[in-house]
Amino acid sequence: MNTVHVTASRDYDVLIGSGLLGSIGSRAAAMKKVKKVCIVSDTNVWPLYGDTVRSSITDAGLKAVRFVFPAGEESKNADTYLELLNCLAENHLTRTDLIVALGGGVVGDLAGFAAATYLRGISFIQVPTTLLAAVDSSVGGKTAIDLPAGKNLVGAFWQPSLVLCDTDCLNTLPEDIFRDGCAEVIKYAVLYDHDLFRCLAQTGLDFDRETVITRCVELKRDVVAQDEFDTGMRMKLNLGHTFGHGVEAQSNFEISHGKAVAIGMAIVARAGFAKGICTKEARDEILSVLESFKLPASCDSTPEQLFTAALSDKKRSGGTVSLIVPRSIADCVILPMPVTEIQSFIEAGL
Amino acid sequence: MNTVHVTASRDYDVLIGSGLLGSIGSRAAAMKKVKKVCIVSDTNVWPLYGDTVRSSITDAGLKAVRFVFPAGEESKNADTYLELLNCLAENHLTRTDLIVALGGGVVGDLAGFAAATYLRGISFIQVPTTLLAAVDSSVGGKTAIDLPAGKNLVGAFWQPSLVLCDTDCLNTLPEDIFRDGCAEVIKYAVLYDHDLFRCLAQTGLDFDRETVITRCVELKRDVVAQDEFDTGMRMKLNLGHTFGHGVEAQSNFEISHGKAVAIGMAIVARAGFAKGICTKEARDEILSVLESFKLPASCDSTPEQLFTAALSDKKRSGGTVSLIVPRSIADCVILPMPVTEIQSFIEAGL
Repeated sequence: MNTVHVTASRDYDVLIGSGLLGSIGSRAAAMKKVKKVCIVSDTNVWPLYGDTVRSSITDAGLKAVRFVFPAGEESKNADTYLELLNCLAENHLTRTDLIVALGGGVVGDLAGFAAATYLRGISFIQVPTTLLAAVDSSVGGKTAIDLPAGKNLVGAFWQPSLVLCDTDCLNTLPEDIFRDGCAEVIKYAVLYDHDLFRCLAQTGLDFDRETVITRCVELKRDVVAQDEFDTGMRMKLNLGHTFGHGVEAQSNFEISHGKAVAIGMAIVARAGFAKGICTKEARDEILSVLESFKLPASCDSTPEQLFTAALSDKKRSGGTVSLIVPRSIADCVILPMPVTEIQSFIEAGL
Repeated sequence: MNTVHVTASRDYDVLIGSGLLGSIGSRAAAMKKVKKVCIVSDTNVWPLYGDTVRSSITDAGLKAVRFVFPAGEESKNADTYLELLNCLAENHLTRTDLIVALGGGVVGDLAGFAAATYLRGISFIQVPTTLLAAVDSSVGGKTAIDLPAGKNLVGAFWQPSLVLCDTDCLNTLPEDIFRDGCAEVIKYAVLYDHDLFRCLAQTGLDFDRETVITRCVELKRDVVAQDEFDTGMRMKLNLGHTFGHGVEAQSNFEISHGKAVAIGMAIVARAGFAKGICTKEARDEILSVLESFKLPASCDSTPEQLFTAALSDKKRSGGTVSLIVPRSIADCVILPMPVTEIQSFIEAGL
């Protein structure tokens, strides 16, 4: 088991290793004053791990309630959020009780936002069960729900008290979902770590789970430590996301987050090369590693469609959009671009 | 004009005086990067001051949009919150834009919670137009909405960037609403300030607005500075509120917040005396000052009803409820009381 310590407005540990699920109860019971735990999960994850987690909690002498919602991004909305809040209130959870978020990014974002706002904030433990959640949403304290107008438009910065990443959970992931997480892993390598990039290019999907997840968590931890509230440096983590979110929305979320991010990275790599920002080698290496992970690098959306989607993205600030563009591997820049130039940039990258 | 500087996770000034409404636009325009302002108000307040505030904003070269909802506590719910969020998203407010909360406590709580969570937090200016909001909700950064299960069960700590308290707004308040705020003013005096208590006992409703509001804001500022996130000292501000919230809920919000707090203070004063905690003089002085402000000191709810209401209150922590009970004027104590003893305590105070 590896431990990554995260320093933020609330410090916490990320534990990464095999067989951690069964320890949740004793770890929750060790937290001050916790008496009741609400396990938040979805209809995919609960049948796989719900009983293990619930038993662990009740065996530790705590009361457990559960809130299980239909799996999928379309559940990450105000209705589910409100149902969860009502569930917490009806079960009389107090300020010193606890939420456990058992699942992928949707579960973590939704449960985290409920934890951030129920009674103006209670503690929560993140238990990411997907690779994407393990390397991305479980570190950094961003929580959110979607609005009809766009993804993640409502949320809060709220740090977990603990993150338990049980690598055994990854064994039950369909390969398609696992590859979603790989897109985010590749993103860290492109942004910050040439060695990790080379490693991934060599191993493809067979990389060592514990080692690579730990490295990604460390990389994200270091960025978040410098910019907890996302006002500068942290913006780089949006590599592939500005257009990726547009790709996701345009497909009515039929293209998953990870694959959309892969397409988004491919767009900025190609457009970056066309505009003289990204080297030819870096563009080719990025496209090649995406291909070796069987991740897509293109989609059916038109430049107009992606442009419209990018405009409802929250990273738009006034008349410019900040794009993250690779110059070479482990060297990416923040490029503030006037809204008027976005569409031609996308055209160069599709 | 008086200025009270508040130190919190975000520092800000509270300005108190006559004729401040017209300065909102220039003050908003002086804030970094603000281009668009959403004025949040209700159907009582907007017709009185909406045009003044909107003109001030557009005259300063900023764009103004408005969100006006039906006046009343029953609007402080998830539906109105969600409508407001959708309004912000549809009008493309960015992270550097601004919300102005123009109204009483309901407007401030709701607009503040939207500001705390839209795009994970944007700036807002509080413009309290009632006495209650001026001395209570505009300082301290607590924002909230109600759930069916109880008041203020969902919210966030989110500090305003500025509070503009234009004492001219108090002139249009119906006396009944004004007296609501007086209950909160009396609360500060009972908690912290014998001189203020004596002043109020002498002047009754004719106290000097600017001076007394400034003193209350200073008192609250000092408490909040020691306990921004409400984990100890700040709990004392709940004097009259634990049972007051119950009184409000039991009456289906026909008894207003201020009057419910007055009743709540009377209950703990009488019960505190019956249990040997509060002096006879203090009990009598409290009941006397409430009477001179024409505030109620009793209600029709039974001890059972108030007991049930207190149990769904968020201040319940495990098996005890923390009550704030006066010993004498400017000397109140936090009394953790087992749930099993609450009903007999209420009986002694009704």
